Amino acid sequence: MPQALEQTQKHETFLKKTEAVFKHMFDHTCGSIEQLDGQLFSEQRWARDNGNWVTGENSSDAIYIDRSLQNGSVFEKIGVNFVAINGELPPGVTFQKAGALTTKEADKEENKAGTPFFATGTSFVIHPYNPMVPIAHCNYRYFQIGKRDQPQYWWFGGGADLTPAYLFEEDAKHFHQTHKQVCDQHDTTYYPRFKQWCDQYFHISHRGESRGVGGIFFDQLNDLSAEELLEFVEACTKAFPQAYLPIVARRKDADFTDTNKQWQRLVRGRYVEFILTSDRGARFGLASGMVTPQSVFNCMPPAAAWTYDDQPASGSAEAALKQVLQQPRAWV
Amino acid sequence: MPQALEQTQKHETFLKKTEAVFKHMFDHTCGSIEQLDGQLFSEQRWARDNGNWVTGENSSDAIYIDRSLQNGSVFEKIGVNFVAINGELPPGVTFQKAGALTTKEADKEENKAGTPFFATGTSFVIHPYNPMVPIAHCNYRYFQIGKRDQPQYWWFGGGADLTPAYLFEEDAKHFHQTHKQVCDQHDTTYYPRFKQWCDQYFHISHRGESRGVGGIFFDQLNDLSAEELLEFVEACTKAFPQAYLPIVARRKDADFTDTNKQWQRLVRGRYVEFILTSDRGARFGLASGMVTPQSVFNCMPPAAAWTYDDQPASGSAEAALKQVLQQPRAWV
Repeated sequence: MPQALEQTQKHETFLKKTEAVFKHMFDHTCGSIEQLDGQLFSEQRWARDNGNWVTGENSSDAIYIDRSLQNGSVFEKIGVNFVAINGELPPGVTFQKAGALTTKEADKEENKAGTPFFATGTSFVIHPYNPMVPIAHCNYRYFQIGKRDQPQYWWFGGGADLTPAYLFEEDAKHFHQTHKQVCDQHDTTYYPRFKQWCDQYFHISHRGESRGVGGIFFDQLNDLSAEELLEFVEACTKAFPQAYLPIVARRKDADFTDTNKQWQRLVRGRYVEFILTSDRGARFGLASGMVTPQSVFNCMPPAAAWTYDDQPASGSAEAALKQVLQQPRAWV
Repeated sequence: MPQALEQTQKHETFLKKTEAVFKHMFDHTCGSIEQLDGQLFSEQRWARDNGNWVTGENSSDAIYIDRSLQNGSVFEKIGVNFVAINGELPPGVTFQKAGALTTKEADKEENKAGTPFFATGTSFVIHPYNPMVPIAHCNYRYFQIGKRDQPQYWWFGGGADLTPAYLFEEDAKHFHQTHKQVCDQHDTTYYPRFKQWCDQYFHISHRGESRGVGGIFFDQLNDLSAEELLEFVEACTKAFPQAYLPIVARRKDADFTDTNKQWQRLVRGRYVEFILTSDRGARFGLASGMVTPQSVFNCMPPAAAWTYDDQPASGSAEAALKQVLQQPRAWV
C-alpha cells in the first residue's frame, strides 16, 4: 500500500475511534444518570437542510443529537449533546473570530471562510434539584481544520468543573482527586496546568469570582500524537461520572430549606452570567452555526434568580462559598 | 462679563438643569410606583474611595444612587438608578471601546484613557409580578467628554421599551402612541427613526427575535442645541410613567395560571440573554467602572427560566407573541 494512502486510512481510523469514544461517553453517562434518577432522557436529532439545521434524522456526514432530562426526581434539568459534524465554516466566520482558537497556527486560518472542518465531542451540564448537590459541567471535543483525510491543524479540548451552591470540601477534593489521577497517568504536568487553566477560564471577571470550585480545563491540546491524546481524553471521559455521580448519590436526599433553594437559584444566576458573557463554547456555537441556539442553551439552568444585594451574611455557609470563589484553593 | 465666562456659566446652568430633570424623573416616577404598589423602595448610595465605589454618602462631584423594590404587591422586582458623575475613564477604557460611542467624533477619543467625562441619567427596569403586565425599561442620559465647562463632545441618549409575556395590542398601541406624541411635538422625524432604532437595538440576534414590542431608542443625539434636546428628553421622561403605569393599573389584577407564570419566566430568560450578550449600557457599565456590577445587574429579573424546547403550541397566545417578536409591527 502506498504510504500516503496508508496515512489517510490510519487518520480515518483515528477519527472513527475518536467519534466512538465521545459517543460511548454520551450513551454510557446518560445511562448512569437515568439509573440514578429513574427518569429517561428525551432525545432530539438534527438534520441539515440547505445549510440550516432542522429537526430530523441525522445524515452520515453530520450526526447531531441533543438529550434533555427535566424535572426528574434527582435532576431538575440536564442538557447533553453529541456531535460528529463534517462541515464548512459559514462566510464571515472563522475559528479565530468565533473564539475557538487563539494560537498562532490559528492566525493562518483567519479570513478563510468556507474552511472545511470536522468536529466531534460531547457535553453535559447537570443542574440537580437539591441545592446541596453541585452543578456539574463536562465537555470533551476534537476539532480539525482542513480536508478530512489531511487536516492542516487539529486539537483536543475539554474539561470538567463543579459549581456548588453549598461547599462540602470532601466533594471538591473527590472531584479534583479523580481527575488528578487520570492526568497523572498520562503526564504529571497535566493536572497542575489544567487545574490552573480551569480556574482562569471559569472566571466571571465582572464579578471578580470563579463560577465554582473548578476541576480541569484544556484547549488546543496537540503536544503529543493524536493517538496518545485520544487515550488521555478517553480516560477523562470515563473519570467524569466517577468524579461526579458519587457526590450526587451522597447529597441528593440531604435536607434543605427554601432559603437554600433560593441561594441555589442565585448561584445559577452567576452561572448564566458566565455562559452568556464568557463561555467560549457557547459563543462559538452561536457564531459558527455549527449547532442551533436551542442546543447551545441546553446548558441553561431551569430557574435562576437575581436580587439587588446577594452578599451573604458573614460567617454563613453561603459566605464560606463566596470566599473560595474569590480565592481559588488547591484541593489535592 | 467676558464672552468665554458667560459661555462657561451658561453651560454650567445647562448641566445643573439636565441633572435636575433626571433627578426629578427618578424621584417622581419612584413615587408614582410606590403609590401603585404600596411598598417603598430601599435606597443604596455609593461613594468614591480611592477610585473604587463603596457604600456611603455621595460626594458633590459624584452622586450615585440605586433604588430597589422587591416582592411588592404589584411589582416583583424593580431596579432604579440615578447618577451625576464627574470622572475620568480608567486606563485602557475609552467610550469607544466600552461601546458607548460609535460615531466618527468618538474615534478621535480612542485610546485617550483618563479622559474626563460628566455623565448624568436615570434608568428604570420594572419586572411586575402578574404575567399579564409587561416588563418596562426606560433610561435617559446625558454624556459629555472633556472638561466640565468646555466639553469636546456631548450627546443625549435613551429610550423606553415594553416587553410583554402576553400581548395586548391596546397596551402596545398606548405605549407607542404616548411616545409618538412627545416625539412629534419636537420633530416629526423622531418617532419613525427612534421606533426603528428601538426595534434594531433591542434585538436578540442569536434568537432572531426582538426582546419585546419596542418603543423608542436613540443615542449620540446632538443634532439640535443642547437646550432644545434637553426639552425633548425632559418630555420623554414625563411620558414614560404616562405610557406605562396605566397599563399596569389595568392588568395587575388579571387572572393567570401557573403556566402563564412559567411563560413569563421564559420571557425573562430571553431578557437576561439580551442584557448579557447585547446591551451596550450594561457592557459600558461593567467595562467603564462608572458604576458597580451590583448596580448594572439591578436590572435583572427576580426569577428567570430556561427549558430545552420553549416553542409555544401553534395558535396559542404565546405563539401570537412570538410572531410579533420575529416580525416587529407598526403600532401607531
